[in-house]
Amino acid sequence: MSAIIREEQIQNIIMREKPKRIGIQAPDGLIGSVLALSDSIESRYGVETVILFDPSYGICDLSNLDAERIGLDLVINLGHSVNTERVGKYTFLIDVEYDVDFIPVLDKAIAQFKGRLNKVGVLTISNHKAQLDLIIRYLTDRGIKAIRGPGHGVLFGGQVFGCNYYNAKDLVEDVDAFFFYGQSRFHAIGVRLVTRKPTYLLDPFFNVIEDVTSGAELIERKAILSVLKAKEARTVGIIVSLKEGQFFMKQALELKEKLSSFGKKVFLFTMREITAQRLRTIKGVDAFLETACPRVALDDEEFDRPVLSYDQGLALIRLLEGGELGDMFSSPFWV
Amino acid sequence: MSAIIREEQIQNIIMREKPKRIGIQAPDGLIGSVLALSDSIESRYGVETVILFDPSYGICDLSNLDAERIGLDLVINLGHSVNTERVGKYTFLIDVEYDVDFIPVLDKAIAQFKGRLNKVGVLTISNHKAQLDLIIRYLTDRGIKAIRGPGHGVLFGGQVFGCNYYNAKDLVEDVDAFFFYGQSRFHAIGVRLVTRKPTYLLDPFFNVIEDVTSGAELIERKAILSVLKAKEARTVGIIVSLKEGQFFMKQALELKEKLSSFGKKVFLFTMREITAQRLRTIKGVDAFLETACPRVALDDEEFDRPVLSYDQGLALIRLLEGGELGDMFSSPFWV
Repeated sequence: MSAIIREEQIQNIIMREKPKRIGIQAPDGLIGSVLALSDSIESRYGVETVILFDPSYGICDLSNLDAERIGLDLVINLGHSVNTERVGKYTFLIDVEYDVDFIPVLDKAIAQFKGRLNKVGVLTISNHKAQLDLIIRYLTDRGIKAIRGPGHGVLFGGQVFGCNYYNAKDLVEDVDAFFFYGQSRFHAIGVRLVTRKPTYLLDPFFNVIEDVTSGAELIERKAILSVLKAKEARTVGIIVSLKEGQFFMKQALELKEKLSSFGKKVFLFTMREITAQRLRTIKGVDAFLETACPRVALDDEEFDRPVLSYDQGLALIRLLEGGELGDMFSSPFWV
Repeated sequence: MSAIIREEQIQNIIMREKPKRIGIQAPDGLIGSVLALSDSIESRYGVETVILFDPSYGICDLSNLDAERIGLDLVINLGHSVNTERVGKYTFLIDVEYDVDFIPVLDKAIAQFKGRLNKVGVLTISNHKAQLDLIIRYLTDRGIKAIRGPGHGVLFGGQVFGCNYYNAKDLVEDVDAFFFYGQSRFHAIGVRLVTRKPTYLLDPFFNVIEDVTSGAELIERKAILSVLKAKEARTVGIIVSLKEGQFFMKQALELKEKLSSFGKKVFLFTMREITAQRLRTIKGVDAFLETACPRVALDDEEFDRPVLSYDQGLALIRLLEGGELGDMFSSPFWV
C-alpha cells in the first residue's frame, strides 16, 4: 500500500495559476511525502515551495489567513479532498488515494452479510473517493445492494468528516446498516452514533471487519459521564479554536451566557492546538467545553477533567434547564 | 515571593481605551494568575475577557494578528514590559514584578567581589525593572561601582532579551564584569557570549551567585559542533516562524539562496512552535536552521540533528565560503 498523490492536479493548478511561490500542506500521515514533492515542484516548474509544517487536520485547518504574510500565491493541501477544488482564497485540495485492494475485505463482507443485510449505505473518507463507486457496484453485483448518499455542501457523495455525517443521515431510512470503508474507527463510530444503525468498519489495509457498536457505546457512556460531571462544575472554560475553519466565537459566547445564567463562572479561552498536556497547565477550571472539533473532546482519553464538545455543551444546558440529556449525537453536523 | 501584577496599569488602560472585550496573555510562568485576573476585570469593569492560551514568550510572540478576528479591542500582555506601553495595534504591556528581596544576594556579591571588581554592569529582565536602580545604588554605596546601559530601541536601560544584548554591549569597554540579576541562566550566558566578559548570575530567589563561564562554554562548544555537523549536511531545512515578531522570511530566503549555491538541497518550512518532537516527524533533512528565536537552537538539548540559529547559519556560510567560523555570538542582536 502506498499513497498516490495526484501530481497531475498540481501540474494543472501550476500551469493555470502561474504561482511564483506555493505552500505545501499535508496531514501528519503524509508528512513524509512533502520533501520529495517540494523537490519535484521546484525542479520541474521552477516554483519556490514552502512546507507548512503545522498539522493540518482537514479543510477546517488550512492556512488561508497566513498565506499572504508568508508571500504564497497559493497553497496545495494534500489528502483532504471534497467536492470543490478550492477552499478559501489560497488553498487548492489535492487528491491523495491509497492503492489498497478493496476486494479481499469486500469478499469477507459478502460472505458475512449476504442474505442478512438487504441494503447498506457505504461511506468513506476522501482518500478512497476513487474506489467508492467501484465498491458499491462490487457489493451490489454480488448480492448486497449498496448505495451512497448524494453529497451535501462540500461533501462528495458518500464522504464523511469527523464532524459531518450528512451522507449517512440522508440514507438512514433506506438502509439496514452502514459500511464505513477505511481505517478510521472514529468516523465509523460517528456514523453509528448519528444514525443508530448497525455500522461496520471495513478496513482494507488489515482486511478486518469490525462492528463498531461497542466502541460507539463506550464513547457515548464517556460522553454522558463527562456531561454529568460538568453539571457539577463551578467554573467552566470555553475554548475557541484559532484554526480558521474551527473558529466559533459566536457559539462560544452564547454558551457562556447560558452557563453563566446557571451560576457557573465561565472563562473564555482561545488556542490553536487543544491538547490534554496544554489544558493541564490551567488549574481552577472544573470542566472545559470546546467549540473547535468534536473529535478533540470525544476521541482523546488523556484529559484530567471533563472536556465537552459543542453538542455535549448543549446537552449540559438542557440538563441545567431541568430537561433531559437528550441525544447528543443526533445532529449530522457536530459543531 | 509572589508575582505582582500592576493592576493599576490595567485600570488606566481600561479607563482610557474603554474596551468592550479584551484579551489576556501571559507567559506560562504566570498562567496560574490569569483566571483571577479575568474574573477581577469582568466583575470590576464589566469588560468581557478572553484568555489567549497559546504560549507567549515575549514581545516577539503577541497576538495582534489574531486580535481582530477574535473581536478584541485590545490585549493585555503580562510580564513582558519594555520601554513602551504598546506594541502593535492591540497589545498593551503590563508590568509584573517579583517582590523578592534583593539584599541577601547583593550582600553576598559584595562580600565576594568587593575589591576584586572595580566596576560592573548590571542587567536584568523586565520583572525586576523596578528594582534595578535600587540595586545599582546599593552596590555602588557599598563599594562596587555599578552602572547600567542606556537602553536601546524598545529595551529599557539595563534590560536584556534572549536575543538582544545591546545594554551589555554598550558597556563592554567600561566594566570589569557583568551582574545578571534574576533567575535566567540563558540570559546571563547570552551576556557572557556577547561581551566575553566575566558574567555572574545573581539569583535572588535561591540566593546564589553563579559564574556562567562554564555554561557559556558548553553552549558555545555545542553551537560550534552543530555548525560543523551542518557543514556536512546534504539537505537543510530552513524554518520560518509564524509568530508575529519572529517572522523573518527575507533572511530565510537569503540563507536558502546561499546554501543552495554550495550544493545543499534546501527546504523552507513555516511553523509556529518549533519543538524537538515536531521536528522529529520529518525525515530526510540532515540539519535545520531556524530564523525564529536563537534560544530555540541554543537552549534546547533534545534535537536529533543539528538545529542552528540564524547567527550559526551565517557562520555555516562563512565556513562553506572557505573562511573561518568566526564569532557567532558577537552581535548584540541574535536574529
